[in-house]
Amino acid sequence: MQSLQDKASEWSGVKREDAFAIDEVNLFQKLGLQTFVNLSTKFYNRVYDEEEEWFRSIFGNSKKEDAIQNQYEFFVQRMGGPPLYSQRKGHPALIGRHRPFPVTHRAAERWLHHMQLALDETPDIDADSKVRMTNFFRHTAFFLVAGDEMKNQNQQTQCKHGIQQPAAP
Amino acid sequence: MQSLQDKASEWSGVKREDAFAIDEVNLFQKLGLQTFVNLSTKFYNRVYDEEEEWFRSIFGNSKKEDAIQNQYEFFVQRMGGPPLYSQRKGHPALIGRHRPFPVTHRAAERWLHHMQLALDETPDIDADSKVRMTNFFRHTAFFLVAGDEMKNQNQQTQCKHGIQQPAAP
Repeated sequence: MQSLQDKASEWSGVKREDAFAIDEVNLFQKLGLQTFVNLSTKFYNRVYDEEEEWFRSIFGNSKKEDAIQNQYEFFVQRMGGPPLYSQRKGHPALIGRHRPFPVTHRAAERWLHHMQLALDETPDIDADSKVRMTNFFRHTAFFLVAGDEMKNQNQQTQCKHGIQQPAAP
Repeated sequence: MQSLQDKASEWSGVKREDAFAIDEVNLFQKLGLQTFVNLSTKFYNRVYDEEEEWFRSIFGNSKKEDAIQNQYEFFVQRMGGPPLYSQRKGHPALIGRHRPFPVTHRAAERWLHHMQLALDETPDIDADSKVRMTNFFRHTAFFLVAGDEMKNQNQQTQCKHGIQQPAAP
């Protein structure tokens, strides 16, 4: 069976070593907290003003301010800064926390479209950092598509065959 | 709706700030790689020799050597060391990757039982580090129980009502 990370690489076109090249530099130290706040603010300003209703509606149950904070705290934590996200919310658990949302190939591409524009609008992010972050975001977006497909496959199988979860042993 | 991390705290009896007190000290620098390898080896030696078949069978499709490496690489990455896990496997995605397994309350307690004994058998882990790690493990185990319940609830709802996942927009 193809692993989550193999699917992510195939669909995104980003090799795992390029996706995690964010770890070769401490991007938090290099860029600073405010740059991450700015990036996430620009990203969600775009998303909440999105003309494509199918995409905008994915975020319909979240307040924009919360979405911004969740995102920049995760980025800061994952890119070498203090564990702001876990201190407030616990494990990132990326697949688990995206479970309520339809993370399709098309949604991943639309997310990445807005993120690329947000990166372009954040001049404090230098070219090298931008490449690293773009690869990380692209690989991660399709990692979540792979997680979403796993969820749907399991549900279809279980509904079709009427398989119950094993009882607590 | 009670969040994953609230359920984890309630069921584990560990507050989030205590669970993530692992981040106040760099445990990787303090303990070193070999200590984490030893801990995971002792843990899985116990699990694969487990007399309780219901628990041992959860790990039946994994090779012990792989289970050990997956675990210590995640611990190293999460506790201040190099991102060994992500370099090899991508995002930890704790809930997503535990999806195939029945992570019940009872399974969490059994996992913790073996981990407590493995910690006790690893003398290089000092008392302060042991408290931090114990709280982290306990909170995380029940965070995964909360993730497992979310999965089961969604499946039951979707099977019962015949709700299909939304088509790719």
